[in-house]
Amino acid sequence: MSAVSTPPTAPGSTGPTPSASSASSGSTPVRRDAEATKAAILKAARHLLARHAHADITLKAVAERAGVSAPLILKYFGNKDTLFARVMSFEADADALLDAPLDGLGRHMVRHVLVSQTRQGADPLLRIVFAPLHGEQGDILRANFRTQVTARLTARLDGPDAGLRAELAVAGLLGLGVMFGIARSTHVRAAALEDIVDRYAPAVQAHLTPGDAG
Amino acid sequence: MSAVSTPPTAPGSTGPTPSASSASSGSTPVRRDAEATKAAILKAARHLLARHAHADITLKAVAERAGVSAPLILKYFGNKDTLFARVMSFEADADALLDAPLDGLGRHMVRHVLVSQTRQGADPLLRIVFAPLHGEQGDILRANFRTQVTARLTARLDGPDAGLRAELAVAGLLGLGVMFGIARSTHVRAAALEDIVDRYAPAVQAHLTPGDAG
Repeated sequence: MSAVSTPPTAPGSTGPTPSASSASSGSTPVRRDAEATKAAILKAARHLLARHAHADITLKAVAERAGVSAPLILKYFGNKDTLFARVMSFEADADALLDAPLDGLGRHMVRHVLVSQTRQGADPLLRIVFAPLHGEQGDILRANFRTQVTARLTARLDGPDAGLRAELAVAGLLGLGVMFGIARSTHVRAAALEDIVDRYAPAVQAHLTPGDAG
Repeated sequence: MSAVSTPPTAPGSTGPTPSASSASSGSTPVRRDAEATKAAILKAARHLLARHAHADITLKAVAERAGVSAPLILKYFGNKDTLFARVMSFEADADALLDAPLDGLGRHMVRHVLVSQTRQGADPLLRIVFAPLHGEQGDILRANFRTQVTARLTARLDGPDAGLRAELAVAGLLGLGVMFGIARSTHVRAAALEDIVDRYAPAVQAHLTPGDAG
């Protein structure tokens, strides 16, 4: 469901979550192909945006990199600007990231980052690290990150310093994503997912609900 | 002292730590200029390396961006390869990052990241986030990060799963650096440094010395 996940090409990606329709009916393959194509287009746009200014990227370049035709991109995304707005948005990712009750949100978010990384080769938040590379685009990414991720989490928190606590919780998630997906550190990648959740989530949760537990 | 810190141009950068020699003697300005020039050269090389392949970057391009002459770069760094090796190394940064007794290392590392960000506009570890952007250079960055940062921290830890615990501790630091320096999140940047240390360091320390405290 994520707006920017990589198509599931990684080993072990025969994931168990057929989102809406039944698992092996006749219509699913087509739908899945469309989703995979959209994901490939978004991935190509993201790749190019991390390396070039928005104005220098043509639809043709995105199409070539994604292995599709430019008209297909127009069909799915309207035009170049709406495509790039989608790439810059954290909205859909935040929907999934924040989809848990507050008292279990730390575990849910840590698990969601790890599952996204291992199953989709993507990360719900990690696009933000490309922000320093481009001027205006970086500002848009940062503003989106603030309103769509940290401010939205802040609104769910009680007690003092909610804004700071939300940012520190998200910082933990970002660091885990960097270690897993960019530094590709060996022990984190080899450990059982729930082992990392057990070790890492309490600190995230402590920012969200500092009263509970120690 | 850091190999890759930005020259101190940020407000409030009249830092209190004149490292080796006395604070206001005759010879300090020259020495400081040389250090600032070296830092500017490293910063320029880092900037270009995040955007271009190693082979495509000329010494002249680094010199122009740093506002120095190419022969001055040779004088300070030998040649292009030694300059880039220096940019890719976390050695000097890890020296400073890990320079504290184990029982206070969590607080020291969190404080060191924040001080580097606020005082030098740099981060001891954050270069690793540019690793996905270039093939072979990314592999070198990742290998250096592993041997010079996480493995070195691992070697100082007692008890089981030291490698995983070191990586999770470093993950926390990376996330804080991303939030502060790249996402530039408002509350983290506005908060008192020691307030963030108080809130964020216990989780880092818990990975280092899980037996102590709760």
